[in-house]
Amino acid sequence: MKEKPAKSHNKSKKPKLYSFRIRKSPYFEATERYGCRAYTTYNNMYLPLVYQDLVSDYWHIKKGVTLWDVGCQRQVEITGPDAFKFLQHLTPRNLTNFKVGQCKYSPLTTEDGGILNDPVVSRLGENHFWLSIADRDVWLWAKGLAVGLQMQVTIQEPDVSPLAVQGPKSFDLMADLFGDWVHKLRYFWFRETELNGIPLVLARSGWSKQGGYELYLRDASYGDQLWEIVMEAGKPYDIQPATPSSIERVESGLLNYWEDLTEDTNPYEVGLGKFVDLNQDVDFIGKEALKKIIAAGIKRKLVGLEIHSEPMYHQAQPWPVECNSQPVGTITSAVYSPDLDKNIAYAMIAVECVDEGTELVVDMGSEQPEATVTAIPFIDNREKVWRGIMDEH
Amino acid sequence: MKEKPAKSHNKSKKPKLYSFRIRKSPYFEATERYGCRAYTTYNNMYLPLVYQDLVSDYWHIKKGVTLWDVGCQRQVEITGPDAFKFLQHLTPRNLTNFKVGQCKYSPLTTEDGGILNDPVVSRLGENHFWLSIADRDVWLWAKGLAVGLQMQVTIQEPDVSPLAVQGPKSFDLMADLFGDWVHKLRYFWFRETELNGIPLVLARSGWSKQGGYELYLRDASYGDQLWEIVMEAGKPYDIQPATPSSIERVESGLLNYWEDLTEDTNPYEVGLGKFVDLNQDVDFIGKEALKKIIAAGIKRKLVGLEIHSEPMYHQAQPWPVECNSQPVGTITSAVYSPDLDKNIAYAMIAVECVDEGTELVVDMGSEQPEATVTAIPFIDNREKVWRGIMDEH
Repeated sequence: MKEKPAKSHNKSKKPKLYSFRIRKSPYFEATERYGCRAYTTYNNMYLPLVYQDLVSDYWHIKKGVTLWDVGCQRQVEITGPDAFKFLQHLTPRNLTNFKVGQCKYSPLTTEDGGILNDPVVSRLGENHFWLSIADRDVWLWAKGLAVGLQMQVTIQEPDVSPLAVQGPKSFDLMADLFGDWVHKLRYFWFRETELNGIPLVLARSGWSKQGGYELYLRDASYGDQLWEIVMEAGKPYDIQPATPSSIERVESGLLNYWEDLTEDTNPYEVGLGKFVDLNQDVDFIGKEALKKIIAAGIKRKLVGLEIHSEPMYHQAQPWPVECNSQPVGTITSAVYSPDLDKNIAYAMIAVECVDEGTELVVDMGSEQPEATVTAIPFIDNREKVWRGIMDEH
Repeated sequence: MKEKPAKSHNKSKKPKLYSFRIRKSPYFEATERYGCRAYTTYNNMYLPLVYQDLVSDYWHIKKGVTLWDVGCQRQVEITGPDAFKFLQHLTPRNLTNFKVGQCKYSPLTTEDGGILNDPVVSRLGENHFWLSIADRDVWLWAKGLAVGLQMQVTIQEPDVSPLAVQGPKSFDLMADLFGDWVHKLRYFWFRETELNGIPLVLARSGWSKQGGYELYLRDASYGDQLWEIVMEAGKPYDIQPATPSSIERVESGLLNYWEDLTEDTNPYEVGLGKFVDLNQDVDFIGKEALKKIIAAGIKRKLVGLEIHSEPMYHQAQPWPVECNSQPVGTITSAVYSPDLDKNIAYAMIAVECVDEGTELVVDMGSEQPEATVTAIPFIDNREKVWRGIMDEH
């Protein structure tokens, strides 16, 4: 916060205390200048939560183009002679065909088969990787493992700060800025480039399914400049600052670490079984546990729900879900979708109740609305993201 | 937050969004009920930041007795046949004389000798430990190491939620609640006990130097009940809810992870060299690096500063410090001490400038006040904490 005049310990105003225990991204001042109204924390950094309001921000992501400070998506960099081998230990995903220039969504598992994080990994060189992580300190896990396994790797947090440009108009905006080649950049691929001398990795990725890019800034001192360049170039497209949308991401089938998956959930339970290859030679962490889990069969599964109630504003806790008056699980994420005009949710429930169309009851405390099991995603936005140029990711 | 009526997406009020990605302690509802005005996050949990105002809360800790929700001090539990051996790998501290029933402040180091965390470790059994951690996910580090080293240990986060009772009147209050034996409990020792059937570990510890205890609640379902029992018993002592005080802790010489120490600082730089035993047989992580560091001599050191300016309200960033117009380091923590009526700070500066009485200049942006190097702590509260019953800790 701004320094107050001396001796100002007044309590009339709610204190607005930014701690520097919580780090600020290089775009932080820009987000304040552009009217960010609230922040949350993510990987010990401030993450913008809302500019206009959650619904206006959401519509702009879906219809226009938006700029997100996602500097809190920290990169865990793995280099060294054993880097690839080490990475293969971290994830159940088969990385055999992982090309330089490619990104791969690669859940990390514990020795119990639980999900530790679900980063997007970029391969910058044969033995040079960035793990763009969800909210959990993968650096510590990787460091601990590397020390224990005595592998020849270096684990670092490089000076890299992602800025996301998301929404259907992002394609034309980014072509204005970088040239037509960005139209041909395939989904989940990247290129090392620069903009007015600012060093960047430009990836076709981002935590929405509305299409877009992420600019991985490689020198924090250019943060404000990069933000302003993109905002200026975005004017013809009515670009707006926004944040990762809790609504859009549920509509589109994206999962959020700590809500929909944690180390207590395994990949099979949350629809990530396709990223587990038990037949590969690599002895990744969690392989034995996952073999046992799949042999025994999973007991619960993440499903979509339509909740038949008045539009919800905000879900304060993981509501219990019942089937035939028996507790069968909990809601992990729930939002009102203005586009569908429905309350939609994810729920982790017993496998006996996961068939589409199953009728359930949600215990919200004040009310107990009915709900119906539905497919994930609620809205299939694949074409928006691929725009004809898809790839395995 | 409370559920709002349907369709309430209004933007007139600043949204008060509690995420359940950020966890709530079992005392969270009590803290709201008792008027907590702002929270920060710590170990991915909400941590109360202020009740009345920072200064009133501070005086109450120093003069009376206060109750703090420090559920965010998560416990990393280490058990299994190799638990003690594994713990010895984690810390440079010599743990040879570590008794069951004792707590030891034990910094954890990386293989580079940097500080990963500075937990208080409690020994509940020969091979049963709790690491009461600062804000960084030690669970991941320990898990990674254990997997890599293939030691026979189990690393867990148990259902344990600390509640701190801090301040000079805590001694009588706790004796009222538990009996006179708590007066004889030595500093940094604990006892497993219960209160009205609520299972607890009662430790003579806490993140102030005003004297006090920590109640490690072993069953979250009793959180609200425990809070109310202590508040009720505290009425004769005018107990107030409060939070770890950013002012009191600087006065008393306590360090805060992420501010005064990080993995980029080593124990010798921050006055924790006494907790490093390079002569022990144990080959702890970072031993070789720390040998090199001490042989080469450290280049910078954390010192106390008195800053000669008007009372500060809040430090927004690590201000640069100059000596003879040369940059020599930065402020890591700075507060106005109402008790001393001075601005006091910690600064990490070049060893050439660390002698007491050295005159420095702090660049606050808007002003450049002079500052004088002083001893840490600013106020010696040892007698308040020990009350005649001290022990190595």
